Amino acid sequence: MAALKAHTGATTSLYSPAGTATLLRSRKRRVAFPSRVRVSCSTVVIGLGGDSGCGKRTFVRRLASVLGDGAAPPRGGNPESNTLVGDTATVICLDDYHSLDRPARKARGLTALDPRANDFDLMYEQVKAIKEGRAVEKPVYNHVTGLLDAPELVRDMAERGQSLGSITASIEARKPDFDAYIDPQKQYADAVIEVLPTKLIPDEEEVGKVLRVRLIMKEDVKHFAPVYLFDEGSTINWIPCGRKLSCSYPGIRFAYGFGTYFGHEVSVLEMDGQFDRLEELLYVETHLSNLSTKFYGEATQQMLSHADFPGSNNGTGLFQTILGFKIRDLYEQIVAERDAVAADAVKA
Amino acid sequence: MAALKAHTGATTSLYSPAGTATLLRSRKRRVAFPSRVRVSCSTVVIGLGGDSGCGKRTFVRRLASVLGDGAAPPRGGNPESNTLVGDTATVICLDDYHSLDRPARKARGLTALDPRANDFDLMYEQVKAIKEGRAVEKPVYNHVTGLLDAPELVRDMAERGQSLGSITASIEARKPDFDAYIDPQKQYADAVIEVLPTKLIPDEEEVGKVLRVRLIMKEDVKHFAPVYLFDEGSTINWIPCGRKLSCSYPGIRFAYGFGTYFGHEVSVLEMDGQFDRLEELLYVETHLSNLSTKFYGEATQQMLSHADFPGSNNGTGLFQTILGFKIRDLYEQIVAERDAVAADAVKA
Repeated sequence: MAALKAHTGATTSLYSPAGTATLLRSRKRRVAFPSRVRVSCSTVVIGLGGDSGCGKRTFVRRLASVLGDGAAPPRGGNPESNTLVGDTATVICLDDYHSLDRPARKARGLTALDPRANDFDLMYEQVKAIKEGRAVEKPVYNHVTGLLDAPELVRDMAERGQSLGSITASIEARKPDFDAYIDPQKQYADAVIEVLPTKLIPDEEEVGKVLRVRLIMKEDVKHFAPVYLFDEGSTINWIPCGRKLSCSYPGIRFAYGFGTYFGHEVSVLEMDGQFDRLEELLYVETHLSNLSTKFYGEATQQMLSHADFPGSNNGTGLFQTILGFKIRDLYEQIVAERDAVAADAVKA
Repeated sequence: MAALKAHTGATTSLYSPAGTATLLRSRKRRVAFPSRVRVSCSTVVIGLGGDSGCGKRTFVRRLASVLGDGAAPPRGGNPESNTLVGDTATVICLDDYHSLDRPARKARGLTALDPRANDFDLMYEQVKAIKEGRAVEKPVYNHVTGLLDAPELVRDMAERGQSLGSITASIEARKPDFDAYIDPQKQYADAVIEVLPTKLIPDEEEVGKVLRVRLIMKEDVKHFAPVYLFDEGSTINWIPCGRKLSCSYPGIRFAYGFGTYFGHEVSVLEMDGQFDRLEELLYVETHLSNLSTKFYGEATQQMLSHADFPGSNNGTGLFQTILGFKIRDLYEQIVAERDAVAADAVKA
């Protein structure tokens, strides 16, 4: 589960550890990072939270790509860092605000997910300052010394060869604190990506091979209109594989509908199955509406250009990419609105 | 079940009793009917067959309306006759070709559905002659004297106050011959309307109150492209009732897909439930594709102008109306093609 909230108001309410904040800003000023961050007044803060291994870092990389950003770890820093600096977006890993290092947490019997192991006051002050265009001295934690947990465990397994057993044990051990401190945050998110087992294969034993992924988007969020399939506000099941599109087993199934999520009206788009060929991806893209792409096939192009990213052949990759477009669109609309207000102020 | 075949070739293979033939013709010549029928060379023969009470006569009336035809029983004849004469269409009830009257059938132990009770040779000769533009002496049976069965039993009940018990008994008695002689004809139809019980109400006891209706259209029939929902050649379930359209219980559900029907590739569009208000009907119409309507909302207009016809609030009325458009379109394309051939012949 990855939860995302676009903070466009004056008050920010960010995600706690196992989260990142992405700062989108216009190109008006240069940025010094990581020790000092300066941004213009057109800053939008995106909060991103979720479980270990759910794909937060992959999402951030997709978002940076959608923004046309050459996002990379800060020069001279740890190349494994979750911190990314680009032309338009700066990504801060909120693990940087841990107040207790690993030995200290161990001594007090706390996990990194516990609020008592994190300095939320400093996080709040610094993100607020950045949002207001002021520079901050941001703490930088060293991943190599083991003072931070590595939050992206599933990717770590793929990329660093850790054993499934040790990862599963690590996730299981933090489960109570995940349930207590991380999971409840999804109720505040404007968009949620849920990862579930497939329903296409009866009695599927191999968990995680084929995924069913849901994109839950809150209704009535300004500049953030939900994606839909064919007929907005109705309920639809769609199997695109048929006469015009052939798919290999177990095929692809989409569902679209609406409902409530923690008391909020939401739209839900679900994809079960995976893409095997380019034409399947493009076919699906052309039948989705409100994607906020800038040209025909942009989602397909993004997915193909990062085919090596985890989840590029299933709903996690597709929905992360789509959310990238929605965030870009939201950002551009906010900037345009502020520019219009500023122009009016100059006239008056 | 109503089955329909458009005969556009030189050979006609019409439906046996419990069927009608509709002759569509251009307005080049005047027509004397019922005793003598003359038509121009632009004649298209539509065969229509199906079970007693399935709505064949209602379908013919809807078709005549779509064609803008003032179709009415022949002057001076029985006003209850199934024969209709209009400006563009002439409807012949194939019961007129019974070779045995009711007493004769009773004496030999045959139902009216039995081929031995019908003169197919005369039917073939006369329809062929009409198709070729020659006049015929067509037998006319008198419905009042009881020499013919009344085929539209469900409508008869509604319109003439017959008891459900006597109708059910009559249908049950003819069931073996229906299965043997009428039902198998659907495999030759280009379009079939199937009427089934609803799935919207669990354990529905009141059979026939809410209907689930399927429009099955053969693929690759010239000038007769199947209707589809959202994405041609895929599989879709659609509940239009939702945020934009509110429906009363039990709502409306559409399904669209494809498959084989007696070895033929077919498209299948299914509607479960019924319309309560104009906006529901219009909303559904605007989301269906390939209807062959001539203007926005024509199906809704047709349905509303015959709101008193049986099935006007469910899939039977909608699909009969749509088939009317498809037949009108087919006819106009055939006429245009023949006119083009004729024009070329004049030039050469």
